[in-house]
Formats: sequence, structure tokens, C-alpha cells
Amino acid sequence: MTYPRNAVRRAHRALVRARAGRRVVAAVAPKSHISPLAPPGGFPDLPDVQGVRLSTGAAGVKYRNRADVMLAVLPPGTVMAGVTTRSATRSAPVRDCEAKLALPMPCKKGAAIIVNSGNSNAFTGAQGDASVAAITQGVATVTAVPATCVFSSSTGVIGERLAHDRIVAVLGQLTADLAPSAFHGAARAIMTTDTFPKGAGARVTLGGEAVSIAGIAKGSGMIAPDMATMLVYIFTDARIDPALLRDTLRALTEKTFNAITVDSDTSTSDTLLIAATGQAGPHIAPDTPEAAAFTAALSDVMRELAHLVVRDGEGATKFLEVQVTGAASAPDARAAALAIANSPLVKTAIAGEDPNWGRVVMAVGKSGAQADRDKLSIWFGPHIVAQNGWVSPEYREDIGADYMKKTDLTLRVDLGLGDAAFTAWTCDLTHDYIRINADYRS
Amino acid sequence: MTYPRNAVRRAHRALVRARAGRRVVAAVAPKSHISPLAPPGGFPDLPDVQGVRLSTGAAGVKYRNRADVMLAVLPPGTVMAGVTTRSATRSAPVRDCEAKLALPMPCKKGAAIIVNSGNSNAFTGAQGDASVAAITQGVATVTAVPATCVFSSSTGVIGERLAHDRIVAVLGQLTADLAPSAFHGAARAIMTTDTFPKGAGARVTLGGEAVSIAGIAKGSGMIAPDMATMLVYIFTDARIDPALLRDTLRALTEKTFNAITVDSDTSTSDTLLIAATGQAGPHIAPDTPEAAAFTAALSDVMRELAHLVVRDGEGATKFLEVQVTGAASAPDARAAALAIANSPLVKTAIAGEDPNWGRVVMAVGKSGAQADRDKLSIWFGPHIVAQNGWVSPEYREDIGADYMKKTDLTLRVDLGLGDAAFTAWTCDLTHDYIRINADYRS
Repeated sequence: MTYPRNAVRRAHRALVRARAGRRVVAAVAPKSHISPLAPPGGFPDLPDVQGVRLSTGAAGVKYRNRADVMLAVLPPGTVMAGVTTRSATRSAPVRDCEAKLALPMPCKKGAAIIVNSGNSNAFTGAQGDASVAAITQGVATVTAVPATCVFSSSTGVIGERLAHDRIVAVLGQLTADLAPSAFHGAARAIMTTDTFPKGAGARVTLGGEAVSIAGIAKGSGMIAPDMATMLVYIFTDARIDPALLRDTLRALTEKTFNAITVDSDTSTSDTLLIAATGQAGPHIAPDTPEAAAFTAALSDVMRELAHLVVRDGEGATKFLEVQVTGAASAPDARAAALAIANSPLVKTAIAGEDPNWGRVVMAVGKSGAQADRDKLSIWFGPHIVAQNGWVSPEYREDIGADYMKKTDLTLRVDLGLGDAAFTAWTCDLTHDYIRINADYRS
Repeated sequence: MTYPRNAVRRAHRALVRARAGRRVVAAVAPKSHISPLAPPGGFPDLPDVQGVRLSTGAAGVKYRNRADVMLAVLPPGTVMAGVTTRSATRSAPVRDCEAKLALPMPCKKGAAIIVNSGNSNAFTGAQGDASVAAITQGVATVTAVPATCVFSSSTGVIGERLAHDRIVAVLGQLTADLAPSAFHGAARAIMTTDTFPKGAGARVTLGGEAVSIAGIAKGSGMIAPDMATMLVYIFTDARIDPALLRDTLRALTEKTFNAITVDSDTSTSDTLLIAATGQAGPHIAPDTPEAAAFTAALSDVMRELAHLVVRDGEGATKFLEVQVTGAASAPDARAAALAIANSPLVKTAIAGEDPNWGRVVMAVGKSGAQADRDKLSIWFGPHIVAQNGWVSPEYREDIGADYMKKTDLTLRVDLGLGDAAFTAWTCDLTHDYIRINADYRS
């Protein structure tokens, strides 16, 4: 499906105004705006997760003519765990989630997650805290879940009062509309500047029983303009020890969501929540084959969701995997990989299909990681580019230039100093990033 | 003076090819390419500095039809000090300078500085070290300055062998051409992607005697594409204690050159050298009024040179001063100021003349600095925007929008937690940055 050029331009202007937060317009872009890196198959078929009920509604927080609120209700005994942004200016709902995640698990009387798009309720003073209380108390009232097990997220413009009454007004209808595993609609309701809904799932057999994992995410930037933030909700029917779930989630986050970057800017609202309903499979205890199998499946889901966020990065036309190996330490490997992935000069070179390995050397050099010019090697995909402190004798510029024409790229740097490795993912830095973030006046 | 559009386009393409390092073209852009932030008066009149002799020549390292080598020869008794990049992949000449700066001062038999543009001699393996040795030994031979007091810099493409023989071939002519205080030509010879030559100077009276300071710099990015690096050479005829000169230079660098950023990418060649010939004024000892007066004058020169580098930032259309006050500690103040100055989202907002204070809150939040939402205040120029954790009741969007139309902008954030402060300078992030760094194929 294609749209005439003028329509695309008009839709873009409308989006830009919506982002500027000054006019209420439909913020669902025409299909021609979908990121060129979006999965060709559209939203995936996700497995049913026992005990998970979801609904969406149109509260009119900011957008018109689209769902902008999602409610998830989880059964008694659900174990919740989460990871939230470390930003010192994180939002009121993030702080509320943090406090509730620190309480003992499971949620004996059930749990709920309520999310709105259009307003992030960040930097809204004491009023922001009051909005969170009103929304979570409202959910508690209609669902009979205790407020201490009602988790909320908000994503959208920073610094404007959240019209929480509009959300509270639709809670009754949301509760009435709850349906099992309605993930696709939920993934759409939490979108802001996203160009496609994001979902990933897995099934794993534990002790002969099927266990399901399904996750949704939003984010168009890890990392975030006013209206883009990363929110991730993962649901599983596994029966898992609360501490094990928490520790597994944290460890996997370092290798997935904390290994992606679009523009190095960190949102004030980033939130990742996982709900384990305990309605399928055997009890999963630490250091068991079941724990290993569950962790592997969860890792796949989280990595896929993280990749989808990068694939929807603002203005992205290339998906880049940055592999750093041979580092002297794990922090060094991570620092070097993220320095490359965040470098504006590396990212513009990728956009320009320029095999500019000098910029990779520069990024390694500034990263703070231990490096030795004469031990460093660089590959673009399978092609060795630099080794022994200089360009490789095997390398020819046309080999690199040909490789850079691909959409999905891999860049590997071996530091030649030790055994530590880290992989990061990013996208290129293009004119569209500037257009999206600079080309309007308020 | 204006050029027809096609000529500008052709010149740009030529520049882009020059940067890609694949064709030899004249790399002096037509005047219409000069940064809109360049000082309107052109290169300043710099004071004569007693004992400083300079010359330039066209060695044809990469460029044709322009000077690309600069030689400075300083008299016996000159005290040298310097600051170089901390990049782990810093270039061969940088490592050579480091080693020589660690030797006892003064340079009893004189000193020399030799700089070429067009090739950075970075990531060139053992061959790179051999090139530095050949060049500095060559200078020692023609000038009778010991090689241990010959400092070299190279700026330009990374990873290509430096044709040092071309430089050695012009050393005799360079020595014959030495002339007092020929700063303007020297500032031009060290340019790469710079759009204008950069100089700043000061005179200060110490104990009734006039002392002069003159400095030149290049850089178009602190921070650096293949061919842009920051190089700074400052000359003074002051008679100053070597340790005092070194310590003063380091302290001032933190508040000047280490307080600017164009794109957060750090060059492998950044070098700042100061030469004090000792031919004017009284001896300057630590903790004296003379030391204070000299430090103030040197600080002015360094700050001005640092600002000029930002004003020539790639694609820059706005100059932004970021003031952070009220921080809990000095590192916090610095971290918050540089997080704001480096944020792509803040920089694109500046480009778009958008008073987007939500992005400033985000950048403070991610900086790692201690912050408290309810104590944070933000000003755009004289206008208070946010206070007490929310938008200020005095603020109206049109006030901010009007202010953002200015070319030179000030953004102040008070963290409300302590007394520490830091000021950083940056430019906006525009389509031209992307065009310069992405819009070509190798």
C-alpha cells in the first residue's frame, strides 16, 4: 500500500505537530511511514499466556481516534519483577513502580498494569504523584487488585499535567473489555512515535509442560524525544521463584535492552515489567535445567524486542550489530561497544554506506577501554579491515563499500587483550533523525 | 562575496572527496562556506611575541595549491608545556609529544614545532613512529634544535601512510622563510575542514613590562571526523616557571578546551602546546600578582580559541553556552553541563529553535549528577522556564520561542543542591552535520 507524496507530507506535518504537543491530531502514521527496518511479516502471532487478560481503550489523553490506554490484569499469585530507568529525573509513575517492585512477591490477590500514551507525567511536580495515585487507586477499585500491586506507566510529552481523570473515566469499560492474551491491540495502544507495534514470544517445554512467554514494547529511540520512551511488558505463565525471576530479568536486561542505543539520550520513563502468572509448568527453582531453559527463552524474547526498538529508531535505515571481543574486562568490552554504537561519526558513516574504519578506531580510543593500537583488529561483516595497528593488507576499499550497502550490518572489533566480549545494537544517524527532532518550531 | 550555487555544490563535492581521502583536490572552501558563526571581523590582529619565528610551506602531503606545513622555531630557554588527547588510540606524533613534554624544561638550546595538515599519521602502525622520527630529526638538523625539543603534530585522514619525505623536503625552505610572529599564515596552514583560520591574543603588563600571548587553533569538531582534530599552539614571551606554566595550562584546559563539544567524538590527535620564550617581562613565580595576571590573560586567549572551534563546528548555526550551577559537587556540575551539551535531542531542539526544556530535564537526569526534580530550575537566557519540579508559572511558550531565534544562546540549569558550577559550550546539530559526515560514498 502506498500513499501519494502530498498525503505523506501532510501526515508527517501532523505527526510533527502532535510531537510538539500543541495540536490534537491522529498520531497513527500512514503505512508508508513504517520504518524500512520493520519486520516484513507484521506483528507476530504470540502464544496465549495463561491467566493474562488485556484490554485497551481511547481515553483521549492527547490523541484522538485511537486507543491510548492499555490495562493488563493478572491472577492471584502473579510474581512481578521489573527494571526502570536510572535517570535522576525519572517520572512519577517510574518512582511508584520502583517502590512497589521492592515489596515482597507474589501479588497474592493479583496484579495489574495500566499504561497510557500521549503524556509521560514526567517533571510534573507533586501533581504528577497525585495523578499516579488517582490512576492506580482507580484500577484497584475496579479490579479488586490491591493498589500496591497496580503498576502504571505513562509515555508522551514531558512537563504537561496528565489528565488522569480521562483515564479513570474509562477504567470501568477497560475492565469489562478484558480478554485473554490480546497482545496486538495492547502493543498498538502504547505507541507514541513508533511506526509499528512491537511484539515477541516464545514457547518452552519444562518438565513436559508447555510454558509461554509473550512481550510487547514501544520505543523509537531507547532513548527519547519528548514522546518516545522505551516501555516493555512481558507476560509468562511460568511458575517461578520471585528472586530468580528478578535476578534473571536484571541479568538479561544488561545484554538486551541495556545493549541498544539510538541516540544515547535516556528517557525519564523507561520501564520494563515482567509478570509471571504461575499458571503453567513446574515450579522453576534456581540452578535447574528448567531455569536454564526458561532463561534462554526469555532471553530470546527480550533480545527480539530490543532489536525491534532499534529497528524503529528515529530515521533509521540500517541496523548495526557491534561486537567487541578480546577486551581486558567486561566493563571495557561494554564501554567500547557502546562508544562505537553511540558515536555520531560512526553512525553517519553507516548512513553514508562508508566503510570508515578510522572512525571506529577513534571511538575505541575515546571509550576509556584499555586498547593497544598494534593488537586491535576490525571486521566489517566477514571482511577483515584492520589488524596489527594498521589497515589489513587483505582489505580493499571496494570490499568494504560493497558490504556497507546491506541493510543489516555487523561490525566486529577484537581488542586482542583478553577474553571479555559485549554485543550492542544500534541504527544509523540520518537526515530523518534531524528532521524528526529539529525541523519544527514550537 | 558570493558564489553561484553550482560552484558551491562542486566545491562541496570536492571537499567531500578530499575528506574521503581518495582524490587530491584543493580543500580551501569558497568563502560562502564559512561558518555563519565565524567572527565578522576575520582573523584578529595578534600581538608580536618576542622570540617566536614562524613559516609555512606547501609540501603537498595531500592538498594541492595551499600551505599544509607550519614550522615554529623558539629561542634557547623556551619553556614548553602541553596537553594531549587521552584517547587509547592516539596518534604517533601525540605519543612522541607526550614523551618530550615529560623531559625537564626549559629547552636550553631552543625548541621547534612542526605541524602538517592532510594526514594525521594515526593508526599507521610502526611506520607512523618512523615518520615522526624522520620529521623531527629533519627539523633538528636544519634548525640546530635538539630533537628532544622538536614537537610535531599531524592532522588529517586516519590510517594512511604519511608521506613524511615530502615534509622533510621542504624543511630547508621553511627554515629560510622564518619570520617573526607570522600567525595568520600558520593558522591557515594547519586547517583541514575548518572554514576559517582561528587566532586569539592578549597583552598584559607585568611589573611595568608588556608581555604578549598569541594563539592559533584548528578544529571543526573538538572531536573529529577523519580530517578534523583540535590542534592549538599558544606562544608567549613571558618568563615563567616551568611547573607553573604546566599547572596553569592544565587547569585552564579543563575550563576551556575540555569544556567544549561539537559531537562528543574525541580525536586521536588532539594536541595543545604552549611555548614561553622568556624574552619579556619579569620572572613569573607561583602565587604572585604576576602569576594571577598572566593566568587571567592566558585564560581569555584559551577560552576565545575554544569558542572559535565551536563556532566552526560542523554544520553549526547556533552557539550555545550551557551553565550549570547549584550542583552538589564539581564533577556533578561538569557531568550535567556536558550531558546537556552532548545530547543529540537538546542539540536538534536548538537547531529547530524549539525551547524544549523537557529535553534539558532528560539530559540532566541521564548525566549521573545528583538531581532533585523539585529543586531544579531552568532558564533560557534571562527567562525562567522551569522551577520547583515543573514549568514556571511565569513562563509562556512564546517567550522561549522568541529567545531561541537568537544565534548566541545561553541555557542555565540550577540544580539547587550545592555551590558547584561548570560552563560548557557547544553548537547545534543540523542537517549539515549529517550532510558533511554521511552524504557520500567511499
